[in-house]
Amino acid sequence: MVRKYIFGEPIETDAVVKGIAPSTWSDGVFQKKEDGFHYSLKEDEIVYGLGENVRGTNKRGWRYISNCTDNPNHCENTNSLYGAHNFIMVGDGVRETYGFFVDTPGKVTFDIGYTDIDDLSISMEEENCKIYLIEAPSYRDVVQEFRELIGRSYIAPRWAFGYGQSRWSYDTADEVCEVAAEYKKHNIPIDSIYLDIDYMERYKDFTINRDSFADFEELVEEMKKEKIHLVPIIDGGVKKEDGYDVYEEGKANGYFCKDGNGEDFIIGVWPGKCCFPDMLDDKARQWFGDKYRFLIDKGIDGFWNDMNEPAIFYSEKRLKKVFEKMEDYKKMNLDVNTFFEMTGMIGSICNNPEDYASFYHNYKGKRYRHDQVHNLFGYYMTRAASEAFERYVPEKRILLFSRACCFPEHPISVCIGSEESGRETMLPGGLI
Amino acid sequence: MVRKYIFGEPIETDAVVKGIAPSTWSDGVFQKKEDGFHYSLKEDEIVYGLGENVRGTNKRGWRYISNCTDNPNHCENTNSLYGAHNFIMVGDGVRETYGFFVDTPGKVTFDIGYTDIDDLSISMEEENCKIYLIEAPSYRDVVQEFRELIGRSYIAPRWAFGYGQSRWSYDTADEVCEVAAEYKKHNIPIDSIYLDIDYMERYKDFTINRDSFADFEELVEEMKKEKIHLVPIIDGGVKKEDGYDVYEEGKANGYFCKDGNGEDFIIGVWPGKCCFPDMLDDKARQWFGDKYRFLIDKGIDGFWNDMNEPAIFYSEKRLKKVFEKMEDYKKMNLDVNTFFEMTGMIGSICNNPEDYASFYHNYKGKRYRHDQVHNLFGYYMTRAASEAFERYVPEKRILLFSRACCFPEHPISVCIGSEESGRETMLPGGLI
Repeated sequence: MVRKYIFGEPIETDAVVKGIAPSTWSDGVFQKKEDGFHYSLKEDEIVYGLGENVRGTNKRGWRYISNCTDNPNHCENTNSLYGAHNFIMVGDGVRETYGFFVDTPGKVTFDIGYTDIDDLSISMEEENCKIYLIEAPSYRDVVQEFRELIGRSYIAPRWAFGYGQSRWSYDTADEVCEVAAEYKKHNIPIDSIYLDIDYMERYKDFTINRDSFADFEELVEEMKKEKIHLVPIIDGGVKKEDGYDVYEEGKANGYFCKDGNGEDFIIGVWPGKCCFPDMLDDKARQWFGDKYRFLIDKGIDGFWNDMNEPAIFYSEKRLKKVFEKMEDYKKMNLDVNTFFEMTGMIGSICNNPEDYASFYHNYKGKRYRHDQVHNLFGYYMTRAASEAFERYVPEKRILLFSRACCFPEHPISVCIGSEESGRETMLPGGLI
Repeated sequence: MVRKYIFGEPIETDAVVKGIAPSTWSDGVFQKKEDGFHYSLKEDEIVYGLGENVRGTNKRGWRYISNCTDNPNHCENTNSLYGAHNFIMVGDGVRETYGFFVDTPGKVTFDIGYTDIDDLSISMEEENCKIYLIEAPSYRDVVQEFRELIGRSYIAPRWAFGYGQSRWSYDTADEVCEVAAEYKKHNIPIDSIYLDIDYMERYKDFTINRDSFADFEELVEEMKKEKIHLVPIIDGGVKKEDGYDVYEEGKANGYFCKDGNGEDFIIGVWPGKCCFPDMLDDKARQWFGDKYRFLIDKGIDGFWNDMNEPAIFYSEKRLKKVFEKMEDYKKMNLDVNTFFEMTGMIGSICNNPEDYASFYHNYKGKRYRHDQVHNLFGYYMTRAASEAFERYVPEKRILLFSRACCFPEHPISVCIGSEESGRETMLPGGLI
């Protein structure tokens, strides 16, 4: 049985597709306290859930923060990865089992017997959320009810289940052809080759680097003859460059996320200075989605949406301050305090929480500060693509990956995350 | 049975106290190849050794690099910690067991079934080393032979086995008294309180901050009455400050490590710009050791030698280059390449291998580049203290900790390493 509870004024996430009348909360196995929800763990109780995440299948003994974060070098001490899947299962798994789903686009912290060995606590910065509490005999029953709640998953095209070859990066069309030829030579079946950022012209979305991929269209055709699908990457940020059509259109139409003063919010990602299309805004999203045609028209039938946590290498404002501050450090005798203040400042340029609280979205008729809806950005970027495919090539089944993800995204794409290709990051991040 | 093999021109480490005639190497269970020594691991074979280190008791499945390194935030992916203990045990542990000790002060890499699942490989940058190969029936027999080889361990004074309270940091004498009083109030027995860097005047070795520890001598006395021993920290680097006696003496007598041009090598640690006393040089070591009297005369009977890997926050030359390079970055549109080049540059200021290859020691009559004898620095700093105690207070048993360590150090001090006080770092670094 599923019960739905509403607290404060929840922001819609599109995660739940099943209509359920809300109930009034009363404490049971889960208690609501001032700092969030609590559940008492029995000694041998196992806690499942939270999607692709660090640590083992049993999530006990750690603190997980649902806050889509770019961190390819994650290790056992990492709190946040690329996805935000706020669903856990507790109980005995055979007679009395519970599923607990926090439906909110903001940050959620799951302290699963970390601070207190037998206490599971779930907390948010603001209490606005919907809670879905599932009670059923077994894990299987809980999962079934949960899947009915969130709807059918996306199924990738058949070829995507074959072997794919991906690396950062193939610099030229020739390299791609060589990879394909070597697979053929060694009789290793291959269905796809991924194109990381170097197929683009200076890392600009929806462009082709014609120096290194002179005849991109022919490359796509040639690979098709070998039954190899090319899967190019698309970035969540659009390069700020005068004369670049995507930037000019986005700017002219006000499609980019704005800072507190209503100016386009400038951040740095692959190409350097960029703007974020407001993927949460219907018009901006439709516009961004239409851009995928640029590659669909070239025969592409698979995409890999990247950097859509969204990752922020730096914000223009923060970087400016950092360079100013470096002038001060230059004049100092750097001791243990000032030296680590300096390196700490540099180390916190990337994905800085202050930056995530410095720009805004238009979402379902309201203005939201980014951090309040953070975990939806990847979803709506991916929905931009998915909706465009429906409009433009409804007859085609297109492969769609998203690096950042959350539950509403699973009906339209596959969640992938990212990691260094070391054995030590694969286990916690990739396989479990 | 122990066999000793000599390769090239080994640098003496003082690790082995037992005289053994060298044998001529011939391949057996260990094979010598161009890239080092190899041993074939059986499927269920366990590999023990390498001192306090990351990962579990069985060292299989990872690459460990003996290269004393300051890294309090170590996790499972760390290769080097504070100690360099080049001893491993393999075999079945009951009938046919081997101990393998690489006696060298330079870097040694143990790839224990990481690159190749059944291959244990031990490699060095230069082959100059002594190898001690122990063959005995059981683990116990191997350990016994090894301990005879390296001599008796240091035993700390009885009070050091009691409870000690340490944190970074107690800023004032009042805070120290408060801690002691609270322990008493709560009836928790306590034998020692550690004084981290703030008891010093601007982090200068062998000074007292008289603003915050006005009557240090009285504090020591007062604590003694409560049966609490104070254990102050001593740094491996001496502050470069005109008029500071330790610096002036070291400079005037040429006791500091020199760069390639024969100038004092300037690095940054706690106090900012510092010089390293050449702990490997007999005269410099005796001089540095004598400085401990400053605190012994104040009633101190325990010391904690820190930063003696030696940690290098920055070298003066590297920092200068970094600030210059920042000027260039300031003018650029920082993209994925240049931005991470910049943050990577900042991230590699600390403990940079180039810096470790940029200064020199006088050691047993020869000049050595630091990286060739790196793992001995902590030992000789600690020996400076230990020898001074013998000269000055031979009747006293003084507690001596060293953060960096290697085998020759175990007869004179306790190895401690360092770590963030999080549960996640304690297990790999502290307990195993």
